[in-house]
Amino acid sequence: MLRPRRYPPRDVFPVDPWALTATRFDADLLERYPGQAETMFAISNGYLGVRGTMDEGSPVEEPGTYLNGFYETRPITYGESAYGFPKVGQSMLTCPDGSVIRLTVDDEPFELSRAEVLGFSRRLDLRRGVLTRDVTWATPRGHRLRLRTTRLVSLAMKHVAAVHWKLVPEDDVDLLISSDLVERAPLPVEDFDPRLADAPGARVLNPTGTECGGLRAVMGYVTGGSRLALGCGMDHRLETACPHDAGAACGAEGATVTIRVAGKAGEPIRLTKFVAYHHAPKEAEDTRAAAGRSLDHAIATGFPALLARQEDEVGDFWQRADVEIDGDPATQQMVRWNLFQLMQASARVHGHGIGARGLTGRSYEGHYFWDTEIYVLPFLIYTAPDIARAVLKFRYDMLPKARARATELGHRGATFPWRTINGDEASAYYAAGTAQYHINADIAYALGKYVEVTGDDDFMVRYGAEILVETARFWLDLGFFSKRRDGRFCINAVTGPDEYNAVVDNNYFTNLMAQANLRQAAAVVAALDAPARAVLAQRTGLAEGEPAEWVEAADRMYLPFDERLGVHPQDDSFLDKEVWDFENTPDEHYPLLLHHHPLNLYRSQVIKQADTLLAMFLMNGRFSGEEKKRNFDYYDPITTHDSSLSVCIQSIIAGEIGYRAKACDYFQFAAAMDLSDIGGNVKHGAHVASIGGTWLALIYGFAGLRDGGGRIAFRPWLPDDWTGLRFPLTVRGRHIRVAVGRETTIYRLEAGEPIEIFHDGEPVRLSPREPEARRRTPATAKAEPCLGHGASNPAVPGTAM
Amino acid sequence: MLRPRRYPPRDVFPVDPWALTATRFDADLLERYPGQAETMFAISNGYLGVRGTMDEGSPVEEPGTYLNGFYETRPITYGESAYGFPKVGQSMLTCPDGSVIRLTVDDEPFELSRAEVLGFSRRLDLRRGVLTRDVTWATPRGHRLRLRTTRLVSLAMKHVAAVHWKLVPEDDVDLLISSDLVERAPLPVEDFDPRLADAPGARVLNPTGTECGGLRAVMGYVTGGSRLALGCGMDHRLETACPHDAGAACGAEGATVTIRVAGKAGEPIRLTKFVAYHHAPKEAEDTRAAAGRSLDHAIATGFPALLARQEDEVGDFWQRADVEIDGDPATQQMVRWNLFQLMQASARVHGHGIGARGLTGRSYEGHYFWDTEIYVLPFLIYTAPDIARAVLKFRYDMLPKARARATELGHRGATFPWRTINGDEASAYYAAGTAQYHINADIAYALGKYVEVTGDDDFMVRYGAEILVETARFWLDLGFFSKRRDGRFCINAVTGPDEYNAVVDNNYFTNLMAQANLRQAAAVVAALDAPARAVLAQRTGLAEGEPAEWVEAADRMYLPFDERLGVHPQDDSFLDKEVWDFENTPDEHYPLLLHHHPLNLYRSQVIKQADTLLAMFLMNGRFSGEEKKRNFDYYDPITTHDSSLSVCIQSIIAGEIGYRAKACDYFQFAAAMDLSDIGGNVKHGAHVASIGGTWLALIYGFAGLRDGGGRIAFRPWLPDDWTGLRFPLTVRGRHIRVAVGRETTIYRLEAGEPIEIFHDGEPVRLSPREPEARRRTPATAKAEPCLGHGASNPAVPGTAM
Repeated sequence: MLRPRRYPPRDVFPVDPWALTATRFDADLLERYPGQAETMFAISNGYLGVRGTMDEGSPVEEPGTYLNGFYETRPITYGESAYGFPKVGQSMLTCPDGSVIRLTVDDEPFELSRAEVLGFSRRLDLRRGVLTRDVTWATPRGHRLRLRTTRLVSLAMKHVAAVHWKLVPEDDVDLLISSDLVERAPLPVEDFDPRLADAPGARVLNPTGTECGGLRAVMGYVTGGSRLALGCGMDHRLETACPHDAGAACGAEGATVTIRVAGKAGEPIRLTKFVAYHHAPKEAEDTRAAAGRSLDHAIATGFPALLARQEDEVGDFWQRADVEIDGDPATQQMVRWNLFQLMQASARVHGHGIGARGLTGRSYEGHYFWDTEIYVLPFLIYTAPDIARAVLKFRYDMLPKARARATELGHRGATFPWRTINGDEASAYYAAGTAQYHINADIAYALGKYVEVTGDDDFMVRYGAEILVETARFWLDLGFFSKRRDGRFCINAVTGPDEYNAVVDNNYFTNLMAQANLRQAAAVVAALDAPARAVLAQRTGLAEGEPAEWVEAADRMYLPFDERLGVHPQDDSFLDKEVWDFENTPDEHYPLLLHHHPLNLYRSQVIKQADTLLAMFLMNGRFSGEEKKRNFDYYDPITTHDSSLSVCIQSIIAGEIGYRAKACDYFQFAAAMDLSDIGGNVKHGAHVASIGGTWLALIYGFAGLRDGGGRIAFRPWLPDDWTGLRFPLTVRGRHIRVAVGRETTIYRLEAGEPIEIFHDGEPVRLSPREPEARRRTPATAKAEPCLGHGASNPAVPGTAM
Repeated sequence: MLRPRRYPPRDVFPVDPWALTATRFDADLLERYPGQAETMFAISNGYLGVRGTMDEGSPVEEPGTYLNGFYETRPITYGESAYGFPKVGQSMLTCPDGSVIRLTVDDEPFELSRAEVLGFSRRLDLRRGVLTRDVTWATPRGHRLRLRTTRLVSLAMKHVAAVHWKLVPEDDVDLLISSDLVERAPLPVEDFDPRLADAPGARVLNPTGTECGGLRAVMGYVTGGSRLALGCGMDHRLETACPHDAGAACGAEGATVTIRVAGKAGEPIRLTKFVAYHHAPKEAEDTRAAAGRSLDHAIATGFPALLARQEDEVGDFWQRADVEIDGDPATQQMVRWNLFQLMQASARVHGHGIGARGLTGRSYEGHYFWDTEIYVLPFLIYTAPDIARAVLKFRYDMLPKARARATELGHRGATFPWRTINGDEASAYYAAGTAQYHINADIAYALGKYVEVTGDDDFMVRYGAEILVETARFWLDLGFFSKRRDGRFCINAVTGPDEYNAVVDNNYFTNLMAQANLRQAAAVVAALDAPARAVLAQRTGLAEGEPAEWVEAADRMYLPFDERLGVHPQDDSFLDKEVWDFENTPDEHYPLLLHHHPLNLYRSQVIKQADTLLAMFLMNGRFSGEEKKRNFDYYDPITTHDSSLSVCIQSIIAGEIGYRAKACDYFQFAAAMDLSDIGGNVKHGAHVASIGGTWLALIYGFAGLRDGGGRIAFRPWLPDDWTGLRFPLTVRGRHIRVAVGRETTIYRLEAGEPIEIFHDGEPVRLSPREPEARRRTPATAKAEPCLGHGASNPAVPGTAM
């Protein structure tokens, strides 16, 4: 069911622990599949993203320059509509593309696909945070030229991207350099794939004015529906001893700076291009002026300083977040690329969310999903707590819209949108949208984990408690105490994470997570001091008796269990369905959603991602190893992994129950999801949640981290071909470094107060005086009960204030 | 849950057994709500329909002139699409409107809403099949005029409509008469209602040429998507002693014939207008020429002869189909209007289907649903078997597309579209569309009833068997033998008739009807002689062992029963749902679908129409009265009747189990559905299925007809205020007349061979020699078991060949 790997051939992309390098301009790979490379070489900082297009602008799959939170609305049309269907969609926009610097030599435009390329290399330097390209070629008239470009999206200056362009002609040649900042329409989508963005057809960026002069152009735009203003501009610094002249020209689609150079043999021409983007609600800010100021700042800073700051920022990231794998350099490379993507998606995300593809593609319209909370936040919590806080604060800022949506749907409390940019529900298919109410519990869960691991109780008091009260109210309203089930609290007509079984009753994942949400809300309210509680009551109208109702619903939560099979049914009807006919499903029918009607999927025991197992991972301490094994044995064979969020979790559970080969295999699929293009759609962007899941699989899987109930515990093991796994974690301000070896696991407190952690069930105390502890790496993963492993009361995260 | 009645006041619409008459031009009724009257006074013949617009063309809600089967395709867009979602919709088109004859007197246009109306009456004559209007008014300059118009859509000449217009001025006045045949756009839809037609926005009728001359204009059009050609034209005959001149003018939107008359006091001006419409697939026929020929024919026939033929045709209809109610003239009027609608929807339907609103409105885009087979066909079978045959033959003609749809969905056999005009699935919401697979069993059921009641075995051999084979195959493929349910045959992820509970497992209605479909298919195949079987095998590839598989699935069909409640659960999950909070649902929240998200409906025990009870009506003989009573008691209180198909069935079951008051009440709602505008949407068209259901409630309800297993049985009773109920039935070529009195019920064989029927369980033999039998009308309806009442093996209709 998992697709064969399509990893680009190793002779083109050599193993390198700190870079992804294409050593050839390979027509097959980069011309026939430009989109794949555009994603692999995309650079971003979480605010501004630029796809890995060629510097000349072609070949191109999608010329994406994206700004987080910059979107246009569009009417959602339905063949048949119904009450409560969202009427307005949101689509992340493609901004004017400032990455392009075209070159004409002797009146021949230089294009890689047509040129006689003598040397080529493109390299995403994961340590420096830059994309460089070296090309040597000969013109039709036989002139040779060498071009090196260095591209970066600044981590230090979030509005700024820069290209350093250095050309050395080996002969005297006339050169015409055109540097663009222009709107480029995405290509029409050929394939049927409901996951793709629904691109607004008509022009959406309405020009509001341009400033053009010298080597600079700054332009303003406004969107018609979302009423957002965009200011963007470019400026250049040219250094050459060759005679030249230059000028800028602006038009409706954008601006071009044209430079004519009488190139001299061996005389380098250096052009530095700075691009800046600002967006804001119309009227809120003069974004064009802001773009101008950012350009001033960038020009004043200069490229070398920008580069140095980039290296500092990236260095700091690796210091906080690197995961080192000894003995498997190919996997190391994939893991580093993955971690780099997490940095790129989140570094400057403040004030916005993390899209399903980060800023590497427009798939899923740039929407934020539960992916953030469940798959990406753990990484941020342990490596960049301030960013984790910002992402959760952004969720909090959506709360008024979540309340309004609950009211619209006839419910109390708040229900967060399944997919959104601006806080409004943008899902146009309720069965895999509005019905995925579990996102409320996912947010509560992530919130609890954040507070528990960081100790940021203040966040819980200020923001978290309000989210918990409203989501708990929502669950209480959504479900009911069923007389037919002995007064158990049932929640019907929901869709769990597994979208191949939609609108079901008592989805195990949802009920379990809602139970935790309800308990957590009550516990947090109980733990508040009187003034904080008064503020909360004022904001939410919280009544005295509400928490007791939540606890009652949680205590009486219906959590189905099948005695005969010894497994938790995914939902009330799941076990009664016919098992999918896997035997007669040809390989090319995966992912099934592209080849089978939803009803046929819903009718069958077939799973996109095993949400019962995900529940067992998230609520780890509640399940014995035996339970996990039984459930894994049942669900694994019927799971297609048609969701990229599946294999990472499968790897963790497999490892925990002793299925080591399977754990390694699933991990490899997770780690290679994008670079091997497992899903066949990496051209549309990197799978950020799967990437977050890869980190989960490394840290919760191999290192065996469990962190419920205020305890940080490890039970590490290593795949056979690994000799070491090393990584840092930040826990309540302490910097801890873990080094798992085949024989010994070393824990080291690098900074901060003393802390007690657990290794294989035994406490380990680290302190500034005795910062290091060595323990025997457990010889085998155990399939026995893990109950209590690292968790006293894991169902109520976030209450240990 | 049933809306308050909005019947127009009796002082405007007096009780009249043979007409619907508006005695005033009432601004409130006819200006504020023109659409209501447009539906009430709509006239059609099943091929051509004209809404009851005013002759001057305004005021107007929707200027509908419709041709059965004349539609345009449109792309169906989805916010999020998925595999197998229909991509092309179909919408019945509004044709150029030929009903309008405008009048200008002394340069003042005559418009009812602005004129000083001295006398007004509009009358739909149910016995003559014409719509007449008399108006007397005074112009602003004080001139008085009298106008009588007579409008008909010919039953004899299906392509032709005619208006006879007679004006008598009381003074000498200058008159300008403009007779149009023009495209008039429907008004934009104001309200949110997913049941309305999605009107194609742009122009859809592309002119292909016009012929204009004398008082005639004939125009040709072609549609862009469906590639249908339309020919339409008008011709006039003017009779007056006043001086006049006249001429026709044609333009892109249509044609106008203008007549100037120097009106003389007391001198009548008679204008007869004939309009003709032909449509056909482009290239198939010169529809413009055909329209011209129809006009020639109409002109040659003349209005008096056309009127005479109309009276003959309508007289013949009442002969075959009238239901007389003694003692309740108001109900008699409603019933007659209803029956008249059935005639209007079906008389010349050959080659097409019967739309959900007939040809009285564009609601539901003019699509054909299961309504035809379950609600309308019984009436046709018993009163117009040739039309019933045509409708079923039309279904048969869809079989190739139904096969293709099954293949697309990955199934064997054939699955008919939930809604369609051309045979392609046009449902844009699978949960209340594709998932309503029960339509296949409904068609099989109606087919069986047709063959059983008419004795038209030839139809079964030629066409029916093929439908049965393919639908049986489909059911066998759709369901499976469930190990967890002792090898029972389960059918999951379906939607039954009750659309408030969608995509459920083991919908009782669906499983029961599928069981009958499977058995029926096997029985019919078994009954075929060898040559017929060979033909069938050649057409369907039928293998020897298939029927046995169908029988096995039928025998092992899972039919859920709840021991505790003693009821059949509507589906696997229904009883586990929370009962809808009816107490806190305000009246204005009905129909719920307009005010609540589908998920909230699906999550609750709340019913749009009680399909378990419908199953008990259709498979009547399988259930004891006690069973029916238990199920009725359970389902009735949670049924909203938000579907117009609900109350008629509820009335039948209520009557059968002895709930007479309830039966009468529900019947009144059914009978008054349109004239009292129970659903508040009669302006969008007449509810043809509900009207068919009214006949069911009369004949199967009060007269207690049961017709399974080759037996025709009655157990009549009468509402307290009725003194008689009289109606004809055609059974296997026999014409039978039934007269239910309070004391005595009389059965009379009016034509045909001897026949045995049953009265209150006892056989009654009628023959030409002893054509009449009198029996005591049962004193009370019995709540006791009805098992065996009229049915030896009612689950296998259509096999008594």
